[in-house]
Amino acid sequence: MLSKNKIKFFNSLKLRKFRIKHNLFLAEGEKLVFNLLQSEIKPKYILTTSKELIPTEKYYNFEVFELTVSDIKKISQLKTPPSVIGIFEIPDYKINFAEIENSLSIYCDDIQNPGNLGTIIRTADWFGIGTVFCSENTVDVYNSKTIQASMGSIASVKIHYINKSYFFSSLNNKIPVYGTFLKGDNIYNAKLSKSGIIIIGNEGKGISEDLNSYITNRLFIPDFNTKIKSAESLNASVAAAVVCSEFKRRK
Amino acid sequence: MLSKNKIKFFNSLKLRKFRIKHNLFLAEGEKLVFNLLQSEIKPKYILTTSKELIPTEKYYNFEVFELTVSDIKKISQLKTPPSVIGIFEIPDYKINFAEIENSLSIYCDDIQNPGNLGTIIRTADWFGIGTVFCSENTVDVYNSKTIQASMGSIASVKIHYINKSYFFSSLNNKIPVYGTFLKGDNIYNAKLSKSGIIIIGNEGKGISEDLNSYITNRLFIPDFNTKIKSAESLNASVAAAVVCSEFKRRK
Repeated sequence: MLSKNKIKFFNSLKLRKFRIKHNLFLAEGEKLVFNLLQSEIKPKYILTTSKELIPTEKYYNFEVFELTVSDIKKISQLKTPPSVIGIFEIPDYKINFAEIENSLSIYCDDIQNPGNLGTIIRTADWFGIGTVFCSENTVDVYNSKTIQASMGSIASVKIHYINKSYFFSSLNNKIPVYGTFLKGDNIYNAKLSKSGIIIIGNEGKGISEDLNSYITNRLFIPDFNTKIKSAESLNASVAAAVVCSEFKRRK
Repeated sequence: MLSKNKIKFFNSLKLRKFRIKHNLFLAEGEKLVFNLLQSEIKPKYILTTSKELIPTEKYYNFEVFELTVSDIKKISQLKTPPSVIGIFEIPDYKINFAEIENSLSIYCDDIQNPGNLGTIIRTADWFGIGTVFCSENTVDVYNSKTIQASMGSIASVKIHYINKSYFFSSLNNKIPVYGTFLKGDNIYNAKLSKSGIIIIGNEGKGISEDLNSYITNRLFIPDFNTKIKSAESLNASVAAAVVCSEFKRRK
């Protein structure tokens, strides 16, 4: 049985300000919680309709509460309340610049839609991109919609929120920085390196102007519409996927 | 000034059953409405905060109502109410099988998420795919979320809801039918034709089994993750984009 105060506390984590205050976030569903339990991210509490669902050998580093379905419903943000909800510490990964210089990473430049950010993380995971950087104005990755859209990939992909100019100046021009625009080199013919940063621009505004000086390669995804076209661009997560696919297939 | 009854009528179109009953749908925002006015889709009413926004030479085939912002708000489903809302007839496009045989089309097999369907239509538009077929259980394309996610592309891409077995048997094995699975031919090396049908499977279940007998080419998008991967698949609209990109870049 969970006290009203605890339920209130867990519920408060739906809001960003309380996630920041307590440095905790909610993860819903067996698959996601078990993926996270196997990652570097530290669990604090597990809420479940049945303790039998949770492997006992793992108990040592978190507290388990058995809840009624009706209490789980009070905390869950899903249409169908899950049998397991985890409360995890927001990780504070150290950036390994040596590793960044030798791999492909994504930089999200003010992505606003939680679903897009989650989908970008899921896509990065699929294509073996281990790090996604986010500008300070990118939507919070620990909100429910983003976590759901990432389909567990926040357990495999390291997310860093980092100031734009600090990040790009720290790279010291050591690796290429790719941006996707409506004009540039046709991505299908462009030379693409094995390591570098791929910037994904904001849904409405694209890549912010203050990043122009850091971009070494301007790419575009050509449109193939020979008739009347209404789409002026691709969705941000779709553009990210096309770019990742193109970088990776050439390896 | 719009009567309460008219506002109620326009509002009813937010629900699928009334869209079907009246064969009408709502489209919000200047860009979308003007794109639709230039398409084959027939306008019935235009609601606007200012008649000056609507080109008068177009008036002949629809009725224009000037509304207060507060009345527009009552009908709008957007956070920021637009200056123009159009009410259009749901088009009943004839399927041109000869054209289908000579081009690339998409078949959505029970896509459930409105955002995914809209994004698939936007992506199809970008890559010059003029027709998107939907199974009868695919989410309604004329709901607000799908129309918003399509970013105007429902004006350029023809959407047909059509029974699966009727559609695929009508093709008479004349063109290849591609499906994306977790196993099959690596899409990056597979032979891809210039015409054919690309099936996009349901978000959770993938492509339904009853389509197996129609599929001539089984493709998969390889994952490039050499470490621990949490994503078991790609988002449906992301997979569609990677497939479209790969078909089109080879032309």
